[in-house]
Amino acid sequence: MSTPDDVARASAERMWTADTASRDLGMRIEEVRAGYARLSMTLAPRMAQGHGTAHGGFVFALADSAFAFACNSYGPTTVAASCDITYLRPGVVGDELVAEAVERERYGRNGIYDVSVRRVSDGVVIAEFRGKSRTIV
Amino acid sequence: MSTPDDVARASAERMWTADTASRDLGMRIEEVRAGYARLSMTLAPRMAQGHGTAHGGFVFALADSAFAFACNSYGPTTVAASCDITYLRPGVVGDELVAEAVERERYGRNGIYDVSVRRVSDGVVIAEFRGKSRTIV
Amino acid sequence: MSTPDDVARASAERMWTADTASRDLGMRIEEVRAGYARLSMTLAPRMAQGHGTAHGGFVFALADSAFAFACNSYGPTTVAASCDITYLRPGVVGDELVAEAVERERYGRNGIYDVSVRRVSDGVVIAEFRGKSRTIV
Amino acid sequence: MSTPDDVARASAERMWTADTASRDLGMRIEEVRAGYARLSMTLAPRMAQGHGTAHGGFVFALADSAFAFACNSYGPTTVAASCDITYLRPGVVGDELVAEAVERERYGRNGIYDVSVRRVSDGVVIAEFRGKSRTIV
Repeated sequence: MSTPDDVARASAERMWTADTASRDLGMRIEEVRAGYARLSMTLAPRMAQGHGTAHGGFVFALADSAFAFACNSYGPTTVAASCDITYLRPGVVGDELVAEAVERERYGRNGIYDVSVRRVSDGVVIAEFRGKSRTIV
Repeated sequence: MSTPDDVARASAERMWTADTASRDLGMRIEEVRAGYARLSMTLAPRMAQGHGTAHGGFVFALADSAFAFACNSYGPTTVAASCDITYLRPGVVGDELVAEAVERERYGRNGIYDVSVRRVSDGVVIAEFRGKSRTIV
Repeated sequence: MSTPDDVARASAERMWTADTASRDLGMRIEEVRAGYARLSMTLAPRMAQGHGTAHGGFVFALADSAFAFACNSYGPTTVAASCDITYLRPGVVGDELVAEAVERERYGRNGIYDVSVRRVSDGVVIAEFRGKSRTIV
Repeated sequence: MSTPDDVARASAERMWTADTASRDLGMRIEEVRAGYARLSMTLAPRMAQGHGTAHGGFVFALADSAFAFACNSYGPTTVAASCDITYLRPGVVGDELVAEAVERERYGRNGIYDVSVRRVSDGVVIAEFRGKSRTIV
């Protein structure tokens, strides 16, 4: 009999195969459990923007992927309804980042997930993200 | 003497040269004026994710770049403090998107910008984004 | 035959009768149309908080009521799913405020409404609010 | 010598004396520590709105006060820059609510605080709130 964490891993494998975007950005799945996901990514030179630091879109993308793996960990297809991100410190090209998505609440078809994005080198948070999900199937 | 729109265009040129990320994603600057920017991008196959549609991070990145060009249009270096995005409809690979960033308010070193992301083919909004900026220099 | 604005006014009258809270706070409906509402309120001494200015909850409540009247203006019962507010300037006891709610987008059972809260004396914005609605009936 | 929690309690007493609004709404301070506050309030008949449930503004006000006490717990005057609230379930007149504010991050003059609002009767969350603070003195 499959446990909730088995379901989470099976869902993650299915998503990962289809998720060209996350793979192309060099993301790695570190851990997926029911209601939880942790992904890492290194800020590459092609992710730099106007002010010499990483384009916020890539920090967002990492958090968003961690959110997607966490909110789909129960099996049914679940999509992002809305997300917000606060930038605490700039990301710098070369930084290895880890995004940890933790479920906060689920109610009806909706869920709220908090994602902290940290630099691996010193554990400092560079962005806080909150995603709201909607299960569609 | 330079007009506010001259300043906006000069700022955009400076940013664009350094903005490897926006160029690498295939963005195009359509228009930049004081407090305003419009950028376009086509959703490429490498932007697809788990559910067969575009990864939200790329729709976000387009909106975020439009926001960055708008909030830097006055000259002084201005960064994103926080952003939120609501997904109205999925983006599909092949869609050409246009993001229009309009300044809502400026107060002290802070600004609020609203960005609508539309499909060019039918003008339908696929995402609404609100960015908050902070001028640092 | 009733026009959309007739429907909006009928809906507003029904809501207003039941809306003890908005009446108790001294709110006044200035105008309601399809997808639009404008309400006013004076910051009363009982609304002061810790730092000698108005408690943010009352500025929020005014914006929230304007949002509620706008998103219910089509007739079907519609509730707030989530809201965010940014404070640009403090409200001071005695200030007359006006909140103007404008529909931004509707999609499926969802809506996005932007509300600006201004001081009537000089028209300056003291808060920007964005509400997301969900039609339940 | 005063501990951080002594400072938090002294700050809370000072704020509470001036906070006409929170007292008028019937709020009670349950606990204040460094980076943390828990306040309770019963939804009164005057807080009812259009759909027979509590006006969201009062649920927001409770969360906002808990946030204010938590972010001022270090002593320096700190104000709300922006807040967002998601409504999970309606509040009903007569419900006793408790809002628990927990600091998530502080960086420079900024802070992020998460507030969960629960019904005391069964511990179910009715709203999730995130507040961003700015220290001004």
